[in-house]
Amino acid sequence: MAMTKTEKLQIDSRGNNDVINITDSVAAAVKKSDVKNGVIVVFVVGSTAGITTTEYEPGLVNFDLEAAFEKIAPKNAMYEHEQTWHDDNGHAHVRASLLGPSITVPVIDGQLSLGTWQQIILIDFDTRPRKRTVICQMLS
Amino acid sequence: MAMTKTEKLQIDSRGNNDVINITDSVAAAVKKSDVKNGVIVVFVVGSTAGITTTEYEPGLVNFDLEAAFEKIAPKNAMYEHEQTWHDDNGHAHVRASLLGPSITVPVIDGQLSLGTWQQIILIDFDTRPRKRTVICQMLS
Amino acid sequence: MAMTKTEKLQIDSRGNNDVINITDSVAAAVKKSDVKNGVIVVFVVGSTAGITTTEYEPGLVNFDLEAAFEKIAPKNAMYEHEQTWHDDNGHAHVRASLLGPSITVPVIDGQLSLGTWQQIILIDFDTRPRKRTVICQMLS
Repeated sequence: MAMTKTEKLQIDSRGNNDVINITDSVAAAVKKSDVKNGVIVVFVVGSTAGITTTEYEPGLVNFDLEAAFEKIAPKNAMYEHEQTWHDDNGHAHVRASLLGPSITVPVIDGQLSLGTWQQIILIDFDTRPRKRTVICQMLS
Repeated sequence: MAMTKTEKLQIDSRGNNDVINITDSVAAAVKKSDVKNGVIVVFVVGSTAGITTTEYEPGLVNFDLEAAFEKIAPKNAMYEHEQTWHDDNGHAHVRASLLGPSITVPVIDGQLSLGTWQQIILIDFDTRPRKRTVICQMLS
Repeated sequence: MAMTKTEKLQIDSRGNNDVINITDSVAAAVKKSDVKNGVIVVFVVGSTAGITTTEYEPGLVNFDLEAAFEKIAPKNAMYEHEQTWHDDNGHAHVRASLLGPSITVPVIDGQLSLGTWQQIILIDFDTRPRKRTVICQMLS
């Protein structure tokens, strides 16, 4: 029988390109759901954060990823978005749209099919601390 | 019983980084399919357009997103692709590959799990108006 | 009855932004699985490679895609990641995180719903030849 299981993660973020390792929480959602073979969609609600994978080590997490996003959408550039709303997070929206709000990971024998040095991360681009909802949708 | 439902959207685009809000059409596909809990894959056919989410407001849509793509793959740079085909859309291909052709969104209680200010967009990077096919593939 | 099928592809890559057309292998996985209508998740294991689609022609594949990644994460820039591990692939990690490790493609009547000029590619950003595992996870 087809099975869809949903788990919602609540993640506290500091914003400002905070890179958070959510691998353990996602793996726990898979375990709780009892999905053995299928996929998990990891989706962040909101338009100023994104999901991807990386090797979670301090150099990439605290410096190198942000340097690339600074090249694409610098914090201190002029954004029409900020003219619309009189806020300061135009770069956060642009970065989030380019990175994308979700990834989909195969589940095999109850395990995420990640590499040893490949972790699932939430990057929060917004300019203030946020409480983020990440939806784990599992199908098998 | 497992269920796969397909809806195809036909979208008219102006090209040239046209950012089109397809959220209502995607939500209508979900409603029509009668999927209550599962996922929807939103996939654009072709190699010069992409799919992501954003806050659909004029600043981001008409200015800020394109400014970032200009940094990554400027319209007026030299592209080997254009030498191959004697056309002018090398930047469109590069932008589309980086953004990616699809997103996957959880469906919960018949609703897309989007944030209030998070819309699903098609960005058409090609250099002329196009008729685009977007496939909505729903699983539950 | 719900069905999850898994096929693992073993791909030899030269690294250094090697762009490999894996469309035929993915299509063969779909055929072998006998999935008629559903989705396929194409996921590369590891944190220095990514998956997307492109028109697979020499200009884009050998020049234009890499030029964009050079703008985002130049090979010869300084990366904190390289200070951590005393290696040389910081740019590879950053590029892989931005591109993302997977795409999801609808399967309709046993066929991948790609455009005529839209192929599925693995880009290997690492700085040496690698043997890559690409997981094809099919649901229907």
